[in-house]
Formats: sequence, C-alpha cells, structure tokens
Amino acid sequence: MPLGGLGEVGKNITLYECQGDMILVDCGIVFPDSDMFGVDLVIPDFTYVVQNKDRIKGVVITHGHEDHIGGLPYLLKEVNLPIYATRLTIGLITNKLEEHGLVRSTKMVEIAPHQKFKLGCFTVEPIHVNHSIPDAVALAITCPAGTIIQTGDFKIDYTPISGGPTDLVTIAEYGEHGVLALLSDSTNAERPGFTATEQKVGASMEALFSRAGKKRIIIATFASNLYRVQQLIDLAVKAGRKVAVSGRSMVNNTQMALELGYLHAPETVLIDIEDINKYPPEKIVLITTGSQGEPLSALSRMAAASHRNVRVGEGDFIIISANPIPGNEKMVTKVVNGLLKLGAEVIYESMYDVHVSGHACQEEQKLMLTLAKPQFFLPVHGEYKHLKKHAQTAAAVGIPEKNIYIGENGDCVVLSADGLTVGEPVPAGAVMVDGLGVGDVGNVVLRDRRHLSEDGLVIVVATIDARTGEVLAGPDLVSRGFVYVRESEKLLDDARDQVRDVLGRMSAADKRDFGSVKTRIRETVSAFLYRKTKRSPMILPILMEV
Amino acid sequence: MPLGGLGEVGKNITLYECQGDMILVDCGIVFPDSDMFGVDLVIPDFTYVVQNKDRIKGVVITHGHEDHIGGLPYLLKEVNLPIYATRLTIGLITNKLEEHGLVRSTKMVEIAPHQKFKLGCFTVEPIHVNHSIPDAVALAITCPAGTIIQTGDFKIDYTPISGGPTDLVTIAEYGEHGVLALLSDSTNAERPGFTATEQKVGASMEALFSRAGKKRIIIATFASNLYRVQQLIDLAVKAGRKVAVSGRSMVNNTQMALELGYLHAPETVLIDIEDINKYPPEKIVLITTGSQGEPLSALSRMAAASHRNVRVGEGDFIIISANPIPGNEKMVTKVVNGLLKLGAEVIYESMYDVHVSGHACQEEQKLMLTLAKPQFFLPVHGEYKHLKKHAQTAAAVGIPEKNIYIGENGDCVVLSADGLTVGEPVPAGAVMVDGLGVGDVGNVVLRDRRHLSEDGLVIVVATIDARTGEVLAGPDLVSRGFVYVRESEKLLDDARDQVRDVLGRMSAADKRDFGSVKTRIRETVSAFLYRKTKRSPMILPILMEV
Repeated sequence: MPLGGLGEVGKNITLYECQGDMILVDCGIVFPDSDMFGVDLVIPDFTYVVQNKDRIKGVVITHGHEDHIGGLPYLLKEVNLPIYATRLTIGLITNKLEEHGLVRSTKMVEIAPHQKFKLGCFTVEPIHVNHSIPDAVALAITCPAGTIIQTGDFKIDYTPISGGPTDLVTIAEYGEHGVLALLSDSTNAERPGFTATEQKVGASMEALFSRAGKKRIIIATFASNLYRVQQLIDLAVKAGRKVAVSGRSMVNNTQMALELGYLHAPETVLIDIEDINKYPPEKIVLITTGSQGEPLSALSRMAAASHRNVRVGEGDFIIISANPIPGNEKMVTKVVNGLLKLGAEVIYESMYDVHVSGHACQEEQKLMLTLAKPQFFLPVHGEYKHLKKHAQTAAAVGIPEKNIYIGENGDCVVLSADGLTVGEPVPAGAVMVDGLGVGDVGNVVLRDRRHLSEDGLVIVVATIDARTGEVLAGPDLVSRGFVYVRESEKLLDDARDQVRDVLGRMSAADKRDFGSVKTRIRETVSAFLYRKTKRSPMILPILMEV
Repeated sequence: MPLGGLGEVGKNITLYECQGDMILVDCGIVFPDSDMFGVDLVIPDFTYVVQNKDRIKGVVITHGHEDHIGGLPYLLKEVNLPIYATRLTIGLITNKLEEHGLVRSTKMVEIAPHQKFKLGCFTVEPIHVNHSIPDAVALAITCPAGTIIQTGDFKIDYTPISGGPTDLVTIAEYGEHGVLALLSDSTNAERPGFTATEQKVGASMEALFSRAGKKRIIIATFASNLYRVQQLIDLAVKAGRKVAVSGRSMVNNTQMALELGYLHAPETVLIDIEDINKYPPEKIVLITTGSQGEPLSALSRMAAASHRNVRVGEGDFIIISANPIPGNEKMVTKVVNGLLKLGAEVIYESMYDVHVSGHACQEEQKLMLTLAKPQFFLPVHGEYKHLKKHAQTAAAVGIPEKNIYIGENGDCVVLSADGLTVGEPVPAGAVMVDGLGVGDVGNVVLRDRRHLSEDGLVIVVATIDARTGEVLAGPDLVSRGFVYVRESEKLLDDARDQVRDVLGRMSAADKRDFGSVKTRIRETVSAFLYRKTKRSPMILPILMEV
C-alpha cells in the first residue's frame, strides 16, 4: 500500500503486509504547493498506520532526505515504532528527532548492505545504491509471497566519489532467483540517457576554481550532498584555500559527517565562518545553503546584503551548484540578480556542469528493470507524468503491459505469483502542518486564506438592542487587505449607508433574527463593492446584542 | 528615460526627449509576481508622462504583445495621445481599447517599414524585424542629438514563414551613417548561439502529425503567434484535417488575422468549435490557448474535463507548443498530468522541437551590435542578469565598457556625441491593477493580504458602555483562515478568557481609551495564540461604544 509518493514528488511512504505482519518503508514530507497558504510542510495521513500499529514490525528507511525521513517525528508522536536505517541516515534522523524530543523514546537499529534482517515474516536486505547523499540503499524485501525490490532513490554512478557503484550484482542475483515486483524511482523518467557521474561536477569545479583567480569562492549546494562537499574540500586543499560553511543545515550536516567519517578534511583547512575575513579572498572557499533561493537561507541573506559575516562584492566568485526545483525558478533568479548587482561574478547556468542529478535517467531505469527482471512493475516516486513515462520504459524492455500498474496513494495492491489485483483503498492523503498544528488546517481554512489573500476582507459590525431591535452602535465597516483606506473613505462610507438602509428597512422582529440580518448585510455589501471595484472581498458581518 | 522594462521582463515603456519634444515607445504591462496577492496586472507609473503630456507628440508601438501594448488603455485614460503602429498591431490595440471604450477618442496612425514619419523634432523609421508575432518593427529614431535604434523584441530568422528576414540592410545603413545609441532586446542574453527558425517547428509538427495517426490533434500555443497558427493550418490542409480554434484570445486573434490578411486558409478548412464532434478524430486539428497552464484557459478546462465542447480521451494526441515561462512550470505540469490521466498522448518535452523562441540569442545580439555599430549601448527588456549578460556580449564585440550603461527604470540617461551621463531620476515604478482599481492596492494592502494568507485573522469584538466603561456585550472572538473552528473551540474560548481578564483588570477610565484597550487586547491574544500554536494571525480588536 503506497500511502504517499505516487502522483507527487515527495512524502514517500509504503506499507507492506504479508500474513498479518506489516512493515513501513520510508516516511517523508512534501513541501506545500503555492496554494497551500501559510502551510509549513505536508505529511502523509497516518490513519491506516495508527489503525494497524500493533502489526507493524518497524520502519525501514532507504536514505536521509526529507522526502524519505521528514515525516518520522510526526509518525512517532502517534505510534512508537523501531527505525531501521544505515549509519549516516540514523545520524540525520537523530538530529531531526532531537528537535522534537523524541530521541530517547525511539529505538533505532543500524543496518548495512549485505546484512539481512527479519521483521515478522519479512526478511529485508539493504542493497547499496548511488544517490546524491551517502549511505542510500535499495531494499530487497522477501516474504512468503515472494521478493519485492524497492529501489528508493537511486542512480548508477560507475565512478562515484566513495562507496562504489550501485550494487548491480546483488540486484542481478535477486533477479535470477525471481523477483515478484519492482518498485522503482521515477523522478527522472522523462530524461533520456544516463545521469552523469558526480565526478563531472568536480572537473567543472576545478576549472571554475582556476577561473576564479584571486577572488573569494562561494558555492551554494544542497547540505545533504556530502559527495559534493567532499569534492569542494579536496579542491580547496589543492588550491591552498580554507573552507568555511554557512547555513544551519550545512553546519549541522558537515559536522556530523566529519564525526561519522563521511567527510574527510585536514584539520587546518576548515575554519569558522566568523574568521573568514581574517584571510584574503583568494584563500577562501565558502560552502553555503540557499541553492534554491530560499528566502531565509544564507545565500539569500548574502544577496540582500544582510548576512552577518559575509559582504558580497566585486571580489566574489559565486557558483550555484544545483538546478532550481520546479517552482523555485523565480526565487533563484531573484538571488542571482541580487548577487550580480552587488558586483559578484555568478555562475548559475546549467551549461557549466556544476550540478548532476541524484536520480536515474531512462537508460539506468532500463538497466534496473533488466537486472531485477520483475514479474510485476510499479513505478513510484513521481507525478503522474513521471510514472506514466516510467511505465512506458518498462514496457519497452519487455514487461507485459498487464503486469505494469500505475498506482495512486492509498491503493491496496495485492501481489502474488498468480497476479496483481487492486483491493479496497485505504486512507491516504495529505495532512498539513502549520506551526504546532498538525491537521488543524484543512480545505476550509485554506479556502478562507486564499479568499483573504486575493481580495482581503470587510467587517461590518453593529450592536443591536435585544429587546427593541434598535441599532445601538454602528454599523461600522473595517477593512483589511481590500483597498487603501485613506483613499477609499467614500467607498466604505457609501457601503455603510447601504447597510444602514438595509437595517432601516427591516422590522424589529426581523432584526432579532441575526442569521438573516447577516445574510442581508453580506449580500448588500458584496454586490455594492463588486459593482464599484470588480472585487469580492470576504464580507464578515458581526452583530452584538445588548 | 526608461519608465519600465529594465530589471524586469515586461511593462516596456521608454520616453525620449530632445529640444523639449517628447515621444513614447511602447506601453506594456507585466503580470504580477506571486507575492502580489490578488493583483490582476501591473502597469507603469505614468506620473512623469502626465506631468509632460503637452510635450509628448505620440506613442510609437513596436509590436502587439501585452508587454508592449497592454498598458495603453490605462495610459489613454490619463492622457490622450496619438498611437503609431503597424497594421496588425493597430488591430490588436483596437480590440484592447474597445474593451475599455476608448476606440473613438483615440487617434491611431498606421505606420510601415521604410516609411519615415515626424513627431516634433524626431524622425522615426520603422524597420522590419522577426519576432513571434507578425508586423514587429525596430525603430530608428533620429533627432538633433543623433540616431537611436531601439530594436523592440526581435530575432533573426533567415527563413521566416512570411515577411522576410529582419531588415539587416537598413540597420547596417544606419550603422554606416552613425548610430548614437542602440537599445536592444536582452530576453535571451543568457543563451549562446542562434534562435532556430520558426520553420523548424513546422518540420517537427509534420512528423508529429504523421505519428498522431488516427487520433485527434490538439495543439496549445500562444494566440498571438500567427506564424505558428499558419503553419498548423497548412499542415492540417495537407493532412486532410479541419481546423477549429478554442479560447477567447485564439478566436479573436485568428478572426482578425484572417480579415487583415495575416492568416490564410481555404474556406472549407476552418470549422466552428461547436462542430468538431461531427467529424471523426483523424479529421480534426484543434488549436487552443492554455500553453502556460493558465487555470481558466481552454486547455486547462480540457484537462479538468470541464470544456464545453471537448472531451479529452484516449483518441487524443496533444502537443504543447510553447515552453513554460519561468513561474508557470507547476501549472503546466498540472495540466499535463490531467491530460495524461484522461488517457491522451501528450507531447510536452522540449526535445520534440515544437517551439522556438521569439527573441535573439547571443550570436544574433552580436550581429545587431556589429551592424548598428552604436557609440553607446543600453541593454533593455530583461532582469538584471539578462542586462548584465547582454552588456558582456557588447563588450565582447568591442563596445568600450565606458559606453555601455545598465540602466534602471526612471533613469534619465543623457546622450550626446560628447558622452553619456545620467541625470536626476524621474518617477517610475509599478502600479497595481486589481479589478477596476488602478493604484488603490499598494504595499500596505499587499502586506495585509500576505499576513492574512499565511495565518488568517482573529477578530475580537466587544461593546462598551461609554459612560461606565462596563462591557455590555462580548468579548467575542471570530476567526477566519486560522484554525478549524470546530476543532479549536477550546483554544478560542481560552483566548476569550484572556481578553476578559485584561478588560477586568482595567479601570473604567482606562477602558474609555479605546486605543490602549485595543493594544492590550492585541498583545494579549497574539502572545497567547503564538504560545499555543506557533502562528501569528492578524489580531483585529473592534470596540463599539453604546
């Protein structure tokens, strides 16, 4: 049962059930769409997980990105389940659970490639895969019904920075023994060819380091891409530059990775951000967050000249080592414009090869399909267009179309050697998190926020004598987000006169029926303001009884 | 004086002044940023134009796109100026002015390449250029100070669908005689190479038409790209298909273009959208708006299965013949997902070459610079990053850096053979249009809309006895866009108790000072709700006096 991650990029979570036992794979978040006003993040609906909590043996995590681990704190607040993950992933989860005070109550079990472990009737083998974060694994999940391979996020890098290429041998062995189903990463299903090796970024960066000459080098990239960070440290050492990091997640991640041995740097190379101005520009490499133009990130603060330690100017050579995630293009452009205006040289175009994807393109997806040789194929991790393309790729390498299923969140896909059927759907959906509130913002609240954001509101307030129906105070009109009040006094005065007329025409008895008074006020003011402005602010009549 | 179009993509407008005479070139709009909640469109600030209206001899328009003509109705409501434009452009402007009831009061003068005309001390020669709309011109503006060439939007297409290539000869002639300054289109300044010819789209489309086989073909593109529409009509004729159009602007534009002779179609080929279901799918080509995923467009309605005449299904072959404009990617993806789910085959990837840009890339910009040989160069039409790149391109072809100026809206650039200086800036900025209101939505209103959109609002209302300070009714709390009221009754009840406590602790005299009562209420409720929810809704205390 995919409870998230289908028809969307994010909040990946899959529930497996066999002979009454259950396991979960991953538990991610997705960032809100632009129409989810004020929402901080979106987590999966855990209803079905909570209903079945006594049968779930554990949560197995494929890697430490937000769309695979971000939902864990919210899950663990509802059900206490053991977490199974590789070492770096456990480090990242621990940081996250600490913020929510959940570390002590959570059992975490370190797993590693080639080390099978049992959860109820399931045997799980982690399989090393390449991705844009170290310690990522695919999972071979064997149960009485057969073996399922879930790739997690993966690509195939024959010359990775460390850890070796995706373990094609183990996948091929499972394929030889028979794989019931493959659930494979669809993120790059639209891209032909192969994703380039991470080393290509190193080569481009080396050329850019030399082009930077005497300038200070500032590089923005994803804080979790420790391969990228490692390459930048190595290049800095070679160029005789010191390395500083900026941005909370970059500081946390590099520190943890150094402690756990996922990053290596000579001790004298790393310096504190507070100290960068003690060195000449040509002796500095600054690695920072903000490659997506996030408004509060370190790079955005540099572009707005409000970073505490870094003043960007003509002596800076800035590289944005990431592509904008769809939806972030304008934010990135704003940051680039800001940095350019300050006089910096900025490398942001894709032609400089300063970024490679962490996901498999079509040829890699074909290789995975060919080695795993699954009876059934379910494309996962992607919007419908990605899943559809991946299904077409699978058909192209010979998976019969009847054995390919494009699912939706909440589907109950029943797999056995006899065939694939789809049972009754289970609860699955999006739960919005806003501040401390989980799920207390829903469609009604969002509809109001949208309405308020487009045209603002006009409040009509009046105090009415409960006995006589006489209007004792008001009607008064208060507006916010509608028009400049100072320039629109007449408009609001005229609207108030309309309300007065309405109230004047109603009998004392009518006026004691607040429901109909409010309806009349709302209709009158709404029609009047639309006629005058072609806008429809929210009209909120409030009547008080004395 | 550039009054718009610098540091932004849109609302192009430039004011020229020489010996007391003035002319305007173009008058466009820009679509609002995502943080301009509820704003329909943004026009230039006409303050300086209005101040100088008696000296302005006319408005010369380069071509009929919204970012060059969209602001005209708003300008003409403030000052009555004659418009000079080519034939198709006048047609498009007329449609626009009709909606605002401005056709009769506006003098429009048809201009054409090679036909010079005088406006005060200015002599203007329109020069034919290629763009994604017919009848586009650059302008050679000669005045006692010298000749300025403003390219408008342009590219160089050696094999255009009609009208011939950009008139390089005339530009070269002006270059030979001496050009004081060049103002050139920077939109594609980041792209190396040449923009491909529009004919390439035709070739790709022909292959796709044949691949569509027995399916109905639906193509979304820009309504103003009549070259594209012409090619589609020609291909439909060749394939024995009828052509229907959908979407208001597509219907209006094709009808006008047929009447004016900018589109040619055998009479029996074009059919009404109402009649498309009378033909088998393989006999239909439907050309529609919605290539940017605009929520109310014809293609979006097809994807949502709510189009009045078109039900999309497995028998449809849909081509999106446009690239998403930055910011529109997610909307386009939503439409693509919807169409795919309905079973249609959808061609939307850039690799199919179903779209080419209408703007010059770096090599074309170099050609323009080389032929015009300007003394001074001002990159225009683009964000800062585009202008900067274009400036670098100009420097690369030999324009001295001191003769290149990256301006801002409102700059007063003084040009003469002796040099380029920048005088006192003039008023220039963005005026927001929301419904019928022009400029009545500003930063305060937008700030409120943003605040309301993020956390909603809580209204605290109470009626107070003017004489005794006694609270006669309330305090009551009303919230919108904050939390689900039904699930948060206790939260709002507790907040009300806090307000009661505050009022209870105040003396009768204190309570008659409404200002300080409101402040106390706001602070109390705000702090309480933030502590409980980590959210900051707008708090709006309203007190009534009886």
